[in-house]
Amino acid sequence: MTTAQPVPAPGEGAPLRVALLGCGVVGSAVARLMSERQADLRARVGAPLELVGVAVRHLDRPPVPGVDPGLLTTDAEELVTRADVVVELMGGIEPAKGLIQRALKHGASVVTANKALLADHGPELYEEASAQGVDLYYEAAVAGAIPLLRPLGESLAGDHVDRVLGIVNGTTNYVLDQMDRTGADLEVALRQAQELGYAEADPTADVEGFDAAAKAALLASLAFHTRVSASDVHREGIMAVTAEDVAGAAAIDHVIKLLAICERLPTEGGDGIGVRVHPALVPRTHPLASVHGAFNAVFVEARAAGQLMFYGPGAGGDPTASAVLGDLVAVARHKVAGHRGPGESAYANLPVLPMGQVRTRYHINLDVADRPGVLATIAAAFAEHGVSLEGVRQELVGPEFIDPEQDETPQRAEAEGSARLVLVTHSAPDGALAATVEALSSLDTVRNVRAVLRVEGA
Amino acid sequence: MTTAQPVPAPGEGAPLRVALLGCGVVGSAVARLMSERQADLRARVGAPLELVGVAVRHLDRPPVPGVDPGLLTTDAEELVTRADVVVELMGGIEPAKGLIQRALKHGASVVTANKALLADHGPELYEEASAQGVDLYYEAAVAGAIPLLRPLGESLAGDHVDRVLGIVNGTTNYVLDQMDRTGADLEVALRQAQELGYAEADPTADVEGFDAAAKAALLASLAFHTRVSASDVHREGIMAVTAEDVAGAAAIDHVIKLLAICERLPTEGGDGIGVRVHPALVPRTHPLASVHGAFNAVFVEARAAGQLMFYGPGAGGDPTASAVLGDLVAVARHKVAGHRGPGESAYANLPVLPMGQVRTRYHINLDVADRPGVLATIAAAFAEHGVSLEGVRQELVGPEFIDPEQDETPQRAEAEGSARLVLVTHSAPDGALAATVEALSSLDTVRNVRAVLRVEGA
Repeated sequence: MTTAQPVPAPGEGAPLRVALLGCGVVGSAVARLMSERQADLRARVGAPLELVGVAVRHLDRPPVPGVDPGLLTTDAEELVTRADVVVELMGGIEPAKGLIQRALKHGASVVTANKALLADHGPELYEEASAQGVDLYYEAAVAGAIPLLRPLGESLAGDHVDRVLGIVNGTTNYVLDQMDRTGADLEVALRQAQELGYAEADPTADVEGFDAAAKAALLASLAFHTRVSASDVHREGIMAVTAEDVAGAAAIDHVIKLLAICERLPTEGGDGIGVRVHPALVPRTHPLASVHGAFNAVFVEARAAGQLMFYGPGAGGDPTASAVLGDLVAVARHKVAGHRGPGESAYANLPVLPMGQVRTRYHINLDVADRPGVLATIAAAFAEHGVSLEGVRQELVGPEFIDPEQDETPQRAEAEGSARLVLVTHSAPDGALAATVEALSSLDTVRNVRAVLRVEGA
Repeated sequence: MTTAQPVPAPGEGAPLRVALLGCGVVGSAVARLMSERQADLRARVGAPLELVGVAVRHLDRPPVPGVDPGLLTTDAEELVTRADVVVELMGGIEPAKGLIQRALKHGASVVTANKALLADHGPELYEEASAQGVDLYYEAAVAGAIPLLRPLGESLAGDHVDRVLGIVNGTTNYVLDQMDRTGADLEVALRQAQELGYAEADPTADVEGFDAAAKAALLASLAFHTRVSASDVHREGIMAVTAEDVAGAAAIDHVIKLLAICERLPTEGGDGIGVRVHPALVPRTHPLASVHGAFNAVFVEARAAGQLMFYGPGAGGDPTASAVLGDLVAVARHKVAGHRGPGESAYANLPVLPMGQVRTRYHINLDVADRPGVLATIAAAFAEHGVSLEGVRQELVGPEFIDPEQDETPQRAEAEGSARLVLVTHSAPDGALAATVEALSSLDTVRNVRAVLRVEGA
């Protein structure tokens, strides 16, 4: 199929030239939908959208439905100089960054889904866009099809956001969900996710939390009008989550989810913010516990609005393309009207506090010696760090129940019985909680710190 | 507290004059939040917002926190001529409509939460705003604090919406939820809602579905780029829902919810749309079943995005004020930048199809004579109308089980046994389903049509 040259209807703006950088799963969905939905897009923008080129790495590739093969080019540098809107879907830092800068300098508006780039280099790109009077939109960078950045940045612009909490990485959610459903080990669930295309061959960006951390940085920047980069985000991935952790969570009606949490933290010197990504226990009755497979869901708590939830497909070609096309229509409308949308604002400039100052709750699972005074010793360790306990549960485990294959503690052969203690803390600074765990593990009576997980959504 | 005259900072725009029409629950929340959040709003808008007047019905009223009593006026006609942005929160058709027209003619942008006005007279007001080059924003008119109109009109502007389905009226949701939780009659639950302030003294607009129908009209207009007014909406309220209906729903793991449903309906001559508000059975496992009390939730199904859900407080002073302030920031930013946001679009102009052509599923509960051939007769009635059955369940009820106080059918005293039939249809045109029920009720063997409810969300 060749793309006819669009001619504007009476009263309509001149055709807008659109350049596409990258033609993978999302890029080809964007190209196809632009072709299929040409008439609607034209009516909504007020001018025809003309695809003027698609930058690809190699020309010898399978044809893209809806794209004239003559539009493919390997010269992205040249392509961006002859477009009104550049849609960047290559991913990665370079050459994406240089091409976006070049596009902005040539007066093009840019739509991108590149969370890693924006989380590290967003501010300089936003400034360039502002200086050129053009738009840089990136709704697709967070939570795929779910409209989240526009609601945060615009609908809630009159409110005071206190917290953003959600599941923003579909791959890890798929893996943890599989572990919960089937009892599988992480390695097995991850391999399955790779076979089904939910995880990449090198899953590092997802399972180590880099992807979620980049998204958390973008969400926090918008929510708190502050520059937050990926390196400001406390990040823990899911690789340490065991089948035993998942089973232990299930036993107390919880599930383990990888959460991105951005929150306002009042301090004596004024508000700060905390931004973190880590696995956490979530009660099974909490709506986030019912987010299955590769879906995403994000809660936003704002002072006047109360608690809002957004839910939908967090990834995939068509859902991500939907968000890209929404941005494309927006920036194209602005081009037609001769102005730009609201830019990024970082006026609040709140300090990002270290993880140690963020208040969290811990769920701690210990093997302890079953003798008098143990609980008192342990309770004292919490008290010393100013951490108060919400609950303690003790399960008696005789040495005969400890499987030597599973339990590597040197004390396993001792004749003395073991007890298992499950402790849940009240909320306390994460630093105090971590120090408490450190102190516990050096106690004589503590044989093994089986699991430490933060608890959220209670 | 008196409002100081704001002076713009260097590089900032001149103060924007804001007039408030109405100072009830939402209006006073807006005034208070404007005062409390002055510095943030100023930074986000790029200019100070100056409240220049609050139009009220009577001057002898309790003071409004954050509002200089000297700003109160009964002369709304004069007030709107000296504002850059008019926030209309009076409700009702007149004088709201005239005042909005007057404000627009004087070059003010308008923010309103007036769903009834927009559902009946939106198009002429949108045209006036467009002609004057100003904004008319109304996020607060649907689903309170939940960002819904901006995501529908902007984030999904590049997608193809097939369906919008949700709970958009908090009062009726509170009443139905109470009936489900306590087994109460509608009258009892409604009285309780009135006592708690969830329902007004005259609850007609809510319980008869007028409020939900106005919101459905606004949602359909945005989703389908078509003018839909309240009178286009098929509307059934909740007054006919009995405690027995709710108990019957619970027995089959369903709940009854008042739903607003806007959908694209393919016909031979092209797409049409259906817009309706009515009580429906929803499976208890469906996310809408867990929307309790006065909360709202809306599902949007779009071709590329897939299924999205938005959830949050659907009403209340502060949540609604949050949406109003979001719009206020948006239109004020546009004023500062000297342009307007995207206007309403009705280019698709799809026909609104009558309810008879909308495809639905029925759940029908019948008392029938317990004799051979009854099921065959009933099945034949369905077949005659081209309706196919998904399931039939028969419960034997001897005459001794029929409580004469409860059952008013003249046949109750007959010696012949009764059976109860519960039938669920496949999806079929609503007209064919209604005609089938009509036919059933005239059958000899059908003693009583106990309940007919549509089923959604299966």
